[in-house]
Amino acid sequence: MWNAIKGKDIPASLRICAGTDGSVTQLLEVLTGKSVNVKTQEQSIIKASPDIARLLDIKKGDHVNRRLVTLNVEGIVFVLAKSLAPIKRMPSGMKDDLMRADIPIGKILRDYRLETRRDILRIEIVHRDLFGDIPVISREYSIIYKKKMLMWINECFPVDDRWRI
Amino acid sequence: MWNAIKGKDIPASLRICAGTDGSVTQLLEVLTGKSVNVKTQEQSIIKASPDIARLLDIKKGDHVNRRLVTLNVEGIVFVLAKSLAPIKRMPSGMKDDLMRADIPIGKILRDYRLETRRDILRIEIVHRDLFGDIPVISREYSIIYKKKMLMWINECFPVDDRWRI
Repeated sequence: MWNAIKGKDIPASLRICAGTDGSVTQLLEVLTGKSVNVKTQEQSIIKASPDIARLLDIKKGDHVNRRLVTLNVEGIVFVLAKSLAPIKRMPSGMKDDLMRADIPIGKILRDYRLETRRDILRIEIVHRDLFGDIPVISREYSIIYKKKMLMWINECFPVDDRWRI
Repeated sequence: MWNAIKGKDIPASLRICAGTDGSVTQLLEVLTGKSVNVKTQEQSIIKASPDIARLLDIKKGDHVNRRLVTLNVEGIVFVLAKSLAPIKRMPSGMKDDLMRADIPIGKILRDYRLETRRDILRIEIVHRDLFGDIPVISREYSIIYKKKMLMWINECFPVDDRWRI
């Protein structure tokens, strides 16, 4: 799956953000030397459909926080990130941060001092409406906490010159 | 402390490796598209001095694995990394991997599927003999596991054109 980000036509800074097992927001800030703004496009609590229940290994109908955000630097969108997080697995307090505010997930994990593991599940090239004709690197990964999936995340990175930072 | 890596004279790929809260080896592999070789310069089990005991929050005389390695791509040294790890905090089996072989720490953590947190403690510009007159970004961080320091790590990155990848 790593071949999707190995092409020489993919800017190095994009390869890095799509390949890290750390926080993308932090990398973007180090890379640009500027603040990253998280803009929430959608956020809601849903009941898990059979597919989502299977993905997250929870019961159908369990409550899940669904969040769709963009990561922006000076008004330019670098990442579109969708996340699904079972409510019952969140440490108390974390739910409010996830729902309320435009806080990056890496920061939330640090603030709550959680010990976690990131498992990268898939990396591929796709298309997404938000980015029109621009190809997009899409990757899926899970954040594991206490041996369960605390969060499933899909990040999409447009492949173009905005990454020539 | 982040100012040390914000300078525009520091190549972007170096800023990223020194700023990530993920695995540096993985970033280097994504960045270069090549394998990273870990070369062990020194490895020994020592008894904790008072200073090391304080650093790791263990008792004086407790056993500690001390490892000094370089991360190399095609014979070029990109990172000099020193680590201290209290033996008693390692999950069984991990000790052998740390001592025996030239395996990157990020890979060891993934192989044992550990849930951890990386806390960056310090980033500064220094000099190190290995790199002669070349300035070096030095950063210290700890890998936290079960609320204790599993490992203290100091990584040194030479600041020169080898990072213009």
